[in-house]
Parts: sequence; C-alpha cells; structure tokens
Amino acid sequence: MKFASFIVDDVAHYGPVSGEMVHVVPERLRAQFPDLKSAIAGQALEQMEAAALREGTPYPLASLQYAPVIPNPGKIICVGLNYRAHGDESGRPNYPALFVRFADTQIGHGENLAMSTESGMFDFEGELAAVIGTPGHGITAEAALDHVAGYACYNDATMRDWQHHSTQYTAGKNFPGTGAFGPFLVTADEVGDPSQLAIATRVDGAMMQSASTVDMLFSVRDIIAYVSRFTPLAAGDVLVTGTPAGAGAGRKPPVFLTAGMVVEVEIERVGLLRNRVAAAR
Amino acid sequence: MKFASFIVDDVAHYGPVSGEMVHVVPERLRAQFPDLKSAIAGQALEQMEAAALREGTPYPLASLQYAPVIPNPGKIICVGLNYRAHGDESGRPNYPALFVRFADTQIGHGENLAMSTESGMFDFEGELAAVIGTPGHGITAEAALDHVAGYACYNDATMRDWQHHSTQYTAGKNFPGTGAFGPFLVTADEVGDPSQLAIATRVDGAMMQSASTVDMLFSVRDIIAYVSRFTPLAAGDVLVTGTPAGAGAGRKPPVFLTAGMVVEVEIERVGLLRNRVAAAR
Repeated sequence: MKFASFIVDDVAHYGPVSGEMVHVVPERLRAQFPDLKSAIAGQALEQMEAAALREGTPYPLASLQYAPVIPNPGKIICVGLNYRAHGDESGRPNYPALFVRFADTQIGHGENLAMSTESGMFDFEGELAAVIGTPGHGITAEAALDHVAGYACYNDATMRDWQHHSTQYTAGKNFPGTGAFGPFLVTADEVGDPSQLAIATRVDGAMMQSASTVDMLFSVRDIIAYVSRFTPLAAGDVLVTGTPAGAGAGRKPPVFLTAGMVVEVEIERVGLLRNRVAAAR
Repeated sequence: MKFASFIVDDVAHYGPVSGEMVHVVPERLRAQFPDLKSAIAGQALEQMEAAALREGTPYPLASLQYAPVIPNPGKIICVGLNYRAHGDESGRPNYPALFVRFADTQIGHGENLAMSTESGMFDFEGELAAVIGTPGHGITAEAALDHVAGYACYNDATMRDWQHHSTQYTAGKNFPGTGAFGPFLVTADEVGDPSQLAIATRVDGAMMQSASTVDMLFSVRDIIAYVSRFTPLAAGDVLVTGTPAGAGAGRKPPVFLTAGMVVEVEIERVGLLRNRVAAAR
C-alpha cells in the first residue's frame, strides 16, 4: 500500500494511492483515525484503504497539495552521515550520531524548500526515512523491521553554517521548511529489504548523491535497536537514516542551493520526492 | 503567581499554589484550558488563579503527586554547560550548543530519577528553565524576557557515557525519567531579573554546584534571541539554560548517582526541586 497526507481547501486529509489518484479516507472514519499516524497506531491501514477506495473522493496526484507523510510525529530522530564512502575500508564508528528535528520543520512533496536570510549555506541531504508502526522499547535488531510501518524519501536539508555553530547540529537542522518528507508512505511489505535500495539525489537534474542503502554504516535494523535502547518508539515516529557522500558542502567547489533550484531524492521502490527551493521571505 | 501541574487519582490537573496548598483549576474551565500550557497560551493564568482560589478543591503540597511543570511542551531546547568557571577569563564561544530533550523524559518534583541498566554513569545537572509565554520568531534580546511566562528548576540528568557515544548528545539526554522539572512555574514578574539568581545543586545534602546565573555565558535573553532566529517559539516551550561547573563526571574522583541518593536543585526565588534516584527496573 501507498498512503499520502495532503491538503484540500485548507483541510488536512490522508488516504491510499491507487494509480494516478489518491482516495480520501471518508469522513465517518476520521473521528477514530484523524490522520495517518493514528491509522498506523490503530493498525488500520488496510481498513482505511478498503474504505477509501470504495467510497472516498478521488483526487489526481498531479495537482495534489501534499503534506509531510507524517505531519505530526512524536519524535523525528535523524542520523548524521551514515554511508561508507567508495573505497573507504576504515571501520564504522561505534554508535550512530543522532540529532532531533522538530515537526514544524517538515514540508510535503512539491512544497517549497525555504531558504533563510540567516544563512547562505543551504544544503541538501537525500535520505531514507523509516516510519515506526509497532511501538517498542528495547527492540532487538532481529525484530526491528517488524516495527516499521513503511518508508518514504526525506530531504534533510540543512543550514550548513548553523549546523557548525557549535558541536551540536540542532540549530542547522531546525529551520522551517527544510525537512521534505514524501511523497508517500510505502508500506514495509512493498519495500522489502531496506538495505538493498538504490538512493539518489539530483539538483536541477544533475546527480549529486548516488549510493545503495547496503552501504549504510548503521542499517535501519541497527538504528532502531540503538535508539530504542534509550527512548521508547511510538507509531508515527520517524527515523531519518542519514545521507550518502555528495552533499553540497563537501563538494569541490561547494554547491549550495539557491532560489529556483529543484532537488529530487529518489529511492528504489520508495518513490521520488521533488521540491523547489524558494527565496527567503 | 506559582502554578503546579499534578496528578490526583491518575488524572492530570494544574492550579495555583497558595501557602502550603495547591488549588485545582475547576472542571468547568478545563474544557477551554485543559493544562498549564493551554492556560499560558490563552494568557489565562490570572483568571485560572482567581477561579481556582475561589472554587477549586485545595490539596496540601506536602502529599502532592507532582507532574513536570509543563508535561507536554512542544519543544524542549537545552543548552550545553553555559557557565563561566571561577577565574576563567577566556571568552565565551560564539554560539550556544543546543540539544533536544523529548517530553517523555520528564518527571515532576518528588518523582524518582530513573537509573538504567544501560548506563553506569548517571549524572546530575542543575539548571534554570524558562517557559515561553508569548510566541515569537526572530525575537530580539531586548524583547526576549517579555516572551517568558515564568521559570522553574530543572535537573537535566544525563547518562554521561551515552552522551559521548558520538559527537551528538541526543542519546545521553533522552532516557525516560531523567528530566526533573519543578516544583512550580513561578511567573516572570515574581522572579524578576533571571540573570541575578543563586543556583545550587546538592546530592544527599552535599553541595555539588553553586553559582549565580550572572555567570551564564549566554543569558536567558541571549538564548531566546538565538533560538528564535531559527525556530518559532510557542507557549509552553521550555528552554533549559545549561549547568554550572561541578556535575559528577567532572569531579575528581567522579561522582555518579546511585539508588537512594537525593538530588536537590535550588534556585533563588524559583524554588527547590528534589528527586530521589531509583534503581533501574
């Protein structure tokens, strides 16, 4: 299954995707399951899909106003870097470097990535996001994927100068309009093994990042197991699993985003997330 | 005014403190203002105080089951360290180091600080917490204190080994039962200048941290101004303003918390937060 969160006439909706249409979850079911997070928590995705395909108004994807896949996660936990570079045989660090993104930084597919007058170093980071389905604390690596509802593309866009104001990344990762998340939640059964996916980031069509999730230093399993050792994970929590080499700041010469550029994050079997960069207001 | 958040028969309440009693905000007002955060957002603290003192059931503080002052903040943004050491004339860093704590790590006054079998380095950090009252984005340092609803004591307790698993502090700062926040919200008018407050942390009565907020590297004003440059602040958001020298890991020999120890954070005009350390379950 694929689910989108979206806006129609300023009202938030969600529903399953079928072909080139998304079907809205009917009003009568939205008291109990008002958003995609609650439908995941209620293990109600199949029920919502059936009801929406049967009786929900269809909207064409081509003109949809997308919201972030999960607009209201309780926790968004992100991993720094996390891919082995080509030919790098050095070991991995012992633990993933984790930082937090606030939900109000997120945007949907097709919405504008927001530059800021506070920074001249706006950078992209294409990543695989895993959305938790089954809650857990102390989840083993072996059981970890059973706790995933599904996957989506994420652009963990960063004010690179602000990321390095101090040792902690928080400031550079929390400007509004920088966490692009979409287009869909693709359920775990459709994606299969999350460690065998091609992932690519393009800016104005030029390839900037190209890797496979097999080259993650910490796999989706590893990340879930580590994170759930210290914090309980709940339905709708989002793990943003780190970016491959090739982001703008590390390039020679560096490449930063400017108004009008289009950034695409494409992940095999997960989808294609596209956002245009807007000038600072 | 002073307000407490607390639990009676498993139901969350809040209300003003008067002498040795807290008076519960009456049921008829709780549809509109269900918790302290919403009362702050509605600029309704004076109205809630008047109604609760007039008609709310009083409970003695001595036997109260406290909740965290704000149990459900949208954002908890914490500053690393942040006090000038005695005699240290070196300059301050250019920017504060910020990390995020999740709301589910918080406990109230008198609740147990939770050790974990995952860590043998459980440490205390006494801090002043500022609770945002008036929302803002791009708040100037001059206007910053007008955005503060009030203050409370915070023990930003830390799994010190996990804090240093990587460059990012997230893991060590997000174990459940480690963010003690209380006992009360003391409104800004009662506290006055937050840069002239004595702050102390005691473990089993022994003084471990003793400083004045005048020695903060980044004042409350500075922190609000910096943070609101990148993220919008909302009513109920909590800024935990960093700890003075003297936390356990830096002592010679190091001092870590063990079951049964009692940690007190006392701040002039703000209150005394006391929590016992509980063994890992």
